[in-house]
Amino acid sequence: MFEFNITSENNRSRTGVFATPHGDLTTPVFAPVGTQAAVKTLTPEHLKGINASLVLSNTYHLYLRPGDELVRDMGGLHKFMQWENPMLTDSGGFQVFSLSQTRKVDEDGVTFKSHIDGSTHRFTPEKSIAIQENLGADIIMAFDECSDPNDRAYIKSAMERTHRWAERSLKAKTRADQALFGIVQGGVDAALRTQSATFIAALDTPGIAIGGLSVGETKQEMHDTLDVVMPLLPKEKPRYLMGVGTPEDLINGVLRGVDIFDCVLPTRLARHHSAFAPEGRLNLMNATFARDERPIDEACDCYACQTFTRAYVRHLIVAKEMLAGTLISIHNLRALIRLMEQIRVYIAEGTFEARAEELLAQWANNAKRKNT
Amino acid sequence: MFEFNITSENNRSRTGVFATPHGDLTTPVFAPVGTQAAVKTLTPEHLKGINASLVLSNTYHLYLRPGDELVRDMGGLHKFMQWENPMLTDSGGFQVFSLSQTRKVDEDGVTFKSHIDGSTHRFTPEKSIAIQENLGADIIMAFDECSDPNDRAYIKSAMERTHRWAERSLKAKTRADQALFGIVQGGVDAALRTQSATFIAALDTPGIAIGGLSVGETKQEMHDTLDVVMPLLPKEKPRYLMGVGTPEDLINGVLRGVDIFDCVLPTRLARHHSAFAPEGRLNLMNATFARDERPIDEACDCYACQTFTRAYVRHLIVAKEMLAGTLISIHNLRALIRLMEQIRVYIAEGTFEARAEELLAQWANNAKRKNT
Repeated sequence: MFEFNITSENNRSRTGVFATPHGDLTTPVFAPVGTQAAVKTLTPEHLKGINASLVLSNTYHLYLRPGDELVRDMGGLHKFMQWENPMLTDSGGFQVFSLSQTRKVDEDGVTFKSHIDGSTHRFTPEKSIAIQENLGADIIMAFDECSDPNDRAYIKSAMERTHRWAERSLKAKTRADQALFGIVQGGVDAALRTQSATFIAALDTPGIAIGGLSVGETKQEMHDTLDVVMPLLPKEKPRYLMGVGTPEDLINGVLRGVDIFDCVLPTRLARHHSAFAPEGRLNLMNATFARDERPIDEACDCYACQTFTRAYVRHLIVAKEMLAGTLISIHNLRALIRLMEQIRVYIAEGTFEARAEELLAQWANNAKRKNT
Repeated sequence: MFEFNITSENNRSRTGVFATPHGDLTTPVFAPVGTQAAVKTLTPEHLKGINASLVLSNTYHLYLRPGDELVRDMGGLHKFMQWENPMLTDSGGFQVFSLSQTRKVDEDGVTFKSHIDGSTHRFTPEKSIAIQENLGADIIMAFDECSDPNDRAYIKSAMERTHRWAERSLKAKTRADQALFGIVQGGVDAALRTQSATFIAALDTPGIAIGGLSVGETKQEMHDTLDVVMPLLPKEKPRYLMGVGTPEDLINGVLRGVDIFDCVLPTRLARHHSAFAPEGRLNLMNATFARDERPIDEACDCYACQTFTRAYVRHLIVAKEMLAGTLISIHNLRALIRLMEQIRVYIAEGTFEARAEELLAQWANNAKRKNT
């Protein structure tokens, strides 16, 4: 269980297969986010249709609603949401810091108020692991302390606490059918990242996560940080870059040796009518598309592109039909999953490094919304 | 084209096949409503999955948004929304009277203000037919004047005008690939309904619609009105009872010889978390279902029931995940479509009349929300 076999390499990029209790995960992989035990607006059938292989769900959200014990009693998260393939849960650390109303951190854990009803709750590393064991994902995360990316003193103390909490998380873990990943923190400070990568790499875990990126730093800072961290991580463990990202981030991450990504971007964009397209990220509500008989992307093999015109999707948006969100979500997720499939082919061929610039140029227009 | 072959009869109930340019329609049939060129929250794949055969769309809504000329230019409604099977559009008459802000009726037509932006528009019988020809459904409706069901004088004058408008609608029609149905009006007044049924039955149309029911009258009044109207209609034409209804209404309608039904009820209930279930209409948001591991209906073959528990659907509702509406819509529509499939089998067997009481008893609990 949780063997990671590297199947091809191209400089720092690699393809691999990570064995989980719910099947082999082919990497590099992009995971759609199912925050509340559902990828917003999509059924598991839709996810299979776009060749999704890994789905992420959020510990913080599921603990609050419907409750991790309920999910356990219903047979675990896979059965509850009827996703038969690999799943990953985060530790709740990031949401406690980004979503909860007030929070008080001490050495033992964090006390916070629910963003839903203001009720008071407490997470510790042990509690986070207990919740994640109730949920039952294949890949789970050590509880970490996230910090203000602009406060260097806090970044250092949070990182050090994250290390102690990683050890406690490991110790608390009881299930053999879950792979616990430690999380490298340290902001965009090379010295701290070096210290954190070295510490987390030394833990006995089947994989390693990189946290604290895509939180406001520049692209250059993200790349520099990955350039510091990745060489310090054991090659034989899968690396998961948390909460990242954009098409460019995926390409740049794989170039630096990342194996697993997740991000709400494709589904969040979809709910705001924004679609990945050859000419750039399009706001499909725009009147330009009222009579556009082309699919969102002529080259895309997703259900939305194989079936509907931009004109129809635009009509659904204007008419406030929720089906618009479903169709654009299918397309946006498929776009990133197709990108990863393409990257895997290029790595296996040994051409990814050489083609990366071309791929980045292709996707450059999708970095931000196109003004049409 | 538009031949109607009765394949079996059981007293006044009958099964039949209505030939349309988009395939044969097996009757009696229940049509899901796709008001704005989409059955809310569902893809055409979902509709195929529940064996939907006829979809209704609304002339008033599509005229306002995205515009019937746009739909025509995009290849017509079938192509626009990618529904390959038979479609029906109403005339806009009912929506002009129920949705538009202000309206002024004269002998030539109706001037009204859009419920969306208050802009002024005018429908005449000729305009309604022109719009419906642009949309291109297989079955289209004559433009009718709907009236306050409590104002007998108005009901009479509106009925008489509806007759004159039916003749104008027929005259305005140019497409040979669309079946125009006249609409019987007359409120719950037996004399007026007799007059209207006689008039509409004498027109050269391939089918006949019954309007002005399910607008506040009692069930007894609806049944009495059908008992007056149906014997006056030519047996060899399909009969469409507009905007009806509940499971009981379908059973009672077929018993009286109705062939086609449509209603927003199943999808509207779904968006309010209400599901047809063996124990009655259930509000699945209720805490009772938090740990209910059963599907909505164990006997149901729909994707929602074959895949998910009530506990999961309830979680989606509480967590405000739109997927809840999708899943309950699939189930509620399938429940009515299955009921019609069962009714067709019973009619063919010659047992429908005898089993009707049993069927009505089975569905009695679904007449209103069960207090759980």
